Amino acid sequence: MHHWATDLFPICRSITGQGVRETLKYIADLLPGLDIKEVPSGTQAFDWIVPDEWNIRNAYIEDDQGHRIVDYRDNNLHIVGYSEPVDKWMDLEELDSYLYSLKEQPTAIPYITSYYARHWGFCLTHKQRQSLKPGRYHVVIDSDLKKGVLNYAELIIKGKTNKEVLLSTYICHPSMANNELSGPVVTVALAQWLLGLEKLKYTYRIIFIPETIGSIVFLSKNLEYLKKNVISGFNITCVGDDRCYSFLPSRNGNTISDTIAQHVLKYIDPKYKRYTWLDRGSDERQYCAPGVDLPVATIMRSKYGEFPEYHTSLDNLELVTESGLIGGYIAIRKSIEILENDCILKTTVLCEPQLGKRGMYPLLSIKNPTFQVKSMMNLISFCDGNNSLLEIADLIEESFEEIYPIATKLIDTGIIEVINEKTQ
Amino acid sequence: MHHWATDLFPICRSITGQGVRETLKYIADLLPGLDIKEVPSGTQAFDWIVPDEWNIRNAYIEDDQGHRIVDYRDNNLHIVGYSEPVDKWMDLEELDSYLYSLKEQPTAIPYITSYYARHWGFCLTHKQRQSLKPGRYHVVIDSDLKKGVLNYAELIIKGKTNKEVLLSTYICHPSMANNELSGPVVTVALAQWLLGLEKLKYTYRIIFIPETIGSIVFLSKNLEYLKKNVISGFNITCVGDDRCYSFLPSRNGNTISDTIAQHVLKYIDPKYKRYTWLDRGSDERQYCAPGVDLPVATIMRSKYGEFPEYHTSLDNLELVTESGLIGGYIAIRKSIEILENDCILKTTVLCEPQLGKRGMYPLLSIKNPTFQVKSMMNLISFCDGNNSLLEIADLIEESFEEIYPIATKLIDTGIIEVINEKTQ
Amino acid sequence: MHHWATDLFPICRSITGQGVRETLKYIADLLPGLDIKEVPSGTQAFDWIVPDEWNIRNAYIEDDQGHRIVDYRDNNLHIVGYSEPVDKWMDLEELDSYLYSLKEQPTAIPYITSYYARHWGFCLTHKQRQSLKPGRYHVVIDSDLKKGVLNYAELIIKGKTNKEVLLSTYICHPSMANNELSGPVVTVALAQWLLGLEKLKYTYRIIFIPETIGSIVFLSKNLEYLKKNVISGFNITCVGDDRCYSFLPSRNGNTISDTIAQHVLKYIDPKYKRYTWLDRGSDERQYCAPGVDLPVATIMRSKYGEFPEYHTSLDNLELVTESGLIGGYIAIRKSIEILENDCILKTTVLCEPQLGKRGMYPLLSIKNPTFQVKSMMNLISFCDGNNSLLEIADLIEESFEEIYPIATKLIDTGIIEVINEKTQ
Repeated sequence: MHHWATDLFPICRSITGQGVRETLKYIADLLPGLDIKEVPSGTQAFDWIVPDEWNIRNAYIEDDQGHRIVDYRDNNLHIVGYSEPVDKWMDLEELDSYLYSLKEQPTAIPYITSYYARHWGFCLTHKQRQSLKPGRYHVVIDSDLKKGVLNYAELIIKGKTNKEVLLSTYICHPSMANNELSGPVVTVALAQWLLGLEKLKYTYRIIFIPETIGSIVFLSKNLEYLKKNVISGFNITCVGDDRCYSFLPSRNGNTISDTIAQHVLKYIDPKYKRYTWLDRGSDERQYCAPGVDLPVATIMRSKYGEFPEYHTSLDNLELVTESGLIGGYIAIRKSIEILENDCILKTTVLCEPQLGKRGMYPLLSIKNPTFQVKSMMNLISFCDGNNSLLEIADLIEESFEEIYPIATKLIDTGIIEVINEKTQ
Repeated sequence: MHHWATDLFPICRSITGQGVRETLKYIADLLPGLDIKEVPSGTQAFDWIVPDEWNIRNAYIEDDQGHRIVDYRDNNLHIVGYSEPVDKWMDLEELDSYLYSLKEQPTAIPYITSYYARHWGFCLTHKQRQSLKPGRYHVVIDSDLKKGVLNYAELIIKGKTNKEVLLSTYICHPSMANNELSGPVVTVALAQWLLGLEKLKYTYRIIFIPETIGSIVFLSKNLEYLKKNVISGFNITCVGDDRCYSFLPSRNGNTISDTIAQHVLKYIDPKYKRYTWLDRGSDERQYCAPGVDLPVATIMRSKYGEFPEYHTSLDNLELVTESGLIGGYIAIRKSIEILENDCILKTTVLCEPQLGKRGMYPLLSIKNPTFQVKSMMNLISFCDGNNSLLEIADLIEESFEEIYPIATKLIDTGIIEVINEKTQ
Repeated sequence: MHHWATDLFPICRSITGQGVRETLKYIADLLPGLDIKEVPSGTQAFDWIVPDEWNIRNAYIEDDQGHRIVDYRDNNLHIVGYSEPVDKWMDLEELDSYLYSLKEQPTAIPYITSYYARHWGFCLTHKQRQSLKPGRYHVVIDSDLKKGVLNYAELIIKGKTNKEVLLSTYICHPSMANNELSGPVVTVALAQWLLGLEKLKYTYRIIFIPETIGSIVFLSKNLEYLKKNVISGFNITCVGDDRCYSFLPSRNGNTISDTIAQHVLKYIDPKYKRYTWLDRGSDERQYCAPGVDLPVATIMRSKYGEFPEYHTSLDNLELVTESGLIGGYIAIRKSIEILENDCILKTTVLCEPQLGKRGMYPLLSIKNPTFQVKSMMNLISFCDGNNSLLEIADLIEESFEEIYPIATKLIDTGIIEVINEKTQ
């Protein structure tokens, strides 16, 4: 995985422009079938309008000795996102009003954007800012902002039904690792895993979009179909560091995605952090908006806005770790496995089945039955046609993963069966 | 406010009689439109019968030297309410069986009544009782108990609809301040405020009644209309001291009045005391009785039965304070403001609206949005046509008061709209 | 009670055989009308088949000196239940694989059975097992396993309606006192009490069965009738020691039996142990199985599987006490009394009734009403036609027992009445 990360990290992504296209093409090489879309600037999407495309070639501040004080080529966070072109001399006093730094994190370059109001600016460490001497400075931003396109990409992996699982991640932040690069990296890995599976119950719609405007554009083009077909979804973001697991619910908090995510996290890390809808901040804001109401929940490692390196140059490839990414990947993969394998179960016999005669129960009655036998008997006791296997897992306080093979064996034996709809 | 209190405090009120009429006339001078009702003794009201009217002119105990030991004119609590006339000499032993005092509160005169059984008696401090010497005493009660009327008063303030808010308070206790005088005083202030408002959504029915028999009589005359039209109500009692806030729910605890009262108190004083229906003791006993079931809750300062001065001469104008009364007034007024302003809200756009273009969102994306912007976005996110503004306030953990102006602004901008009925 | 216990304790019961018949005949002498049933070996009952009948006459292990090392006549737990006949010499090494003991409880003989697989074995204390010397041993089991019958017994006590209460206990464990003898002993006492009552609202079906196979056979013969008619039931087991009270719910935990059992135990012992369905282990496994779903809950003293003496020779007549048995009996009897006396109540008057005129309320209004008056007023306040007396007891936080006489008095006075169905 890491090799994708080191390749993609330096690219200067924004909500539009060359960096996004470069990123999506790299991903397309990894995911056959990925469809890169173009939406022209000026397109209306609900209450929003796709903005002009922004591209930047170079940007720097030089002092009157010709020393480059701040250089976009050193770190693409140095430039305020969507900065308009500038080529000007000014003294420090004027320049200062275009500078952004963080007093509390003096060695971090902050990440700042101004998508919807013409503006320009430079971001730098507070330490560097304090070292600037009075004098004349040459400010150059070689960018342009003009009619172009917004890009996003979509991969559809067909399953047995048209009912869909939506996986959404964003590709609009330059050179930040937990938020955002971990998202596309884990999503690519999940997509490769899904592409390799032989049978899928559900169809998977996997999208790589710029945050906010991207999800709004995507929804504006597909809303009716998605509302009809999406049965579960996950927004994939901040899945790269190793410090904790986090959960952010859908707006109503009661979708199957919420239930599954919480079930999975409970067994991976019982101390995972539970956020609420009031803590939201990514594309679930659109997916779960009133009238949209897709069943989208979010599983994260350290959540955006909550870790100190967030939206600064410190959110880099040292913060994100191999095991951090694998942990994020595993949590979402297990969630998808539950989606694929969950089913409504019903016993085929009245009273407890006689498992002894099938070699599934100890023949000698002793003081304490084994854990495995207890789980099996507990599972059977809730196969009343009104519970799904996931619900049974929660009722009997076992992980889905642990009881799924037991259920499979019982189905094979004919003691329980899968039914299509709850009986009550 | 205090000037009403000092005027009304000394009047010897009971459930019937001259003291009640005097009190209601005083209130009528403050509230144009107040209608003073008369219900004849003997009138049946559900399981009850309006008792004879009681009036008292004088009452005292003299020793054989002609010294007045206990004198009704010193404190009208000295006489057991509804005492029948007496003029007798008796020795201390006999007299003692007609005396009431409180061993645990030796300087307090208790408040005792005997409305429905012919009886007489005197109340005095335990200290005074213990100083009584053996000997002959002359007991005089110049009262009468005869056919007359029960009085109560009603003020109707018309709103846009016939749907009503019921405000009920009682005027039957002689010379006690938190329980009861604070009730009529705060209710008069609320009525004056309502009379001064230009537009009211609801009609307000404000009643000043004797407790228990008064609410039963009132209900027996109006039950069907009230059941059809009252959408909320508050019993106003014990709203005068400064020691705490208290809440007593309706019988089922789930009416809009309960929700509003708890919302208001949570923001005024998060440590307010929560009582249950089992702690009731005032006219909610009738308003929420089986088959009556009006949505009436109670907001109090120190609750009847729970403060040491309750039903004694110590519940006086020193206990009740200006700020105590204002606090009670404010809590109920805020509750009414919520009733008047609550509404069901729905966004007019899909996904989040673009607030930046309306000058309502910071154009520069920085690390932490302001509190005000977060509240606004949270509010919008729940405007799905299924939540009222009050419900949204609770969902986003803000006070109604704080988010009401934000909602108003959003309605003006056209981003959200008021709808008549929940969509689900 | 104890005399039944000492008579029945030594009998070698199993799921079939002479010991069961002897036990049921003894009980039949105590309970006129008890019907002892026979079900032939080989009968199919849902997923199960009634096994051959097992009878044992003698069993021992002798050393080569003719000393009896282990003798079934000393303690019938010495023989593994359903052991097939054996008459063999073997050396200690071979013998050892047929011996069962408990290392952690070296002075206890464990209780072991092998109903559904041909096997034989001896159980002994670990201490004794360790004292066995190498050498030759003569092993004799004089038993037989052949076509015969499975017995159980049923007593039906007719009430006013066909709606039934099921009391079930098991009679298949040899010489263990809390689990199982306390069960039949308490059940006999309950049956005698019910037989002595003049009027019963419900019909009582009281069964004495072998555990598991017995309840499965019983259900297979009566399921449709039971599903239609049983409104409550209790599995009676482990009701004999004095250490605690325990509650095990029905599968869904929300039947009237669950509610009553928890209400009763709360007032007998607020610290009673609350188990869950996952802790089950007796005939509720069948009664509450999917598709059976009878409303059966379990009230116990120390629960099977949870006390150290469980399923060993230490679960004997010293562990079970007179007061332990009485406690178990009382808890279930109180539960039945609630079933018999519960009813839906409705006031006949609007607002509070005037209890003073009926001599049921203090005529003098003083500071604190008595506890009894408060209970009565609380009770009346919930008689809205939507609550049963048991529900009211929980709402007003009083025991059913305490408020039942108050309700009776109020019904007699005509203030409240019993109605047949909830009004909402």
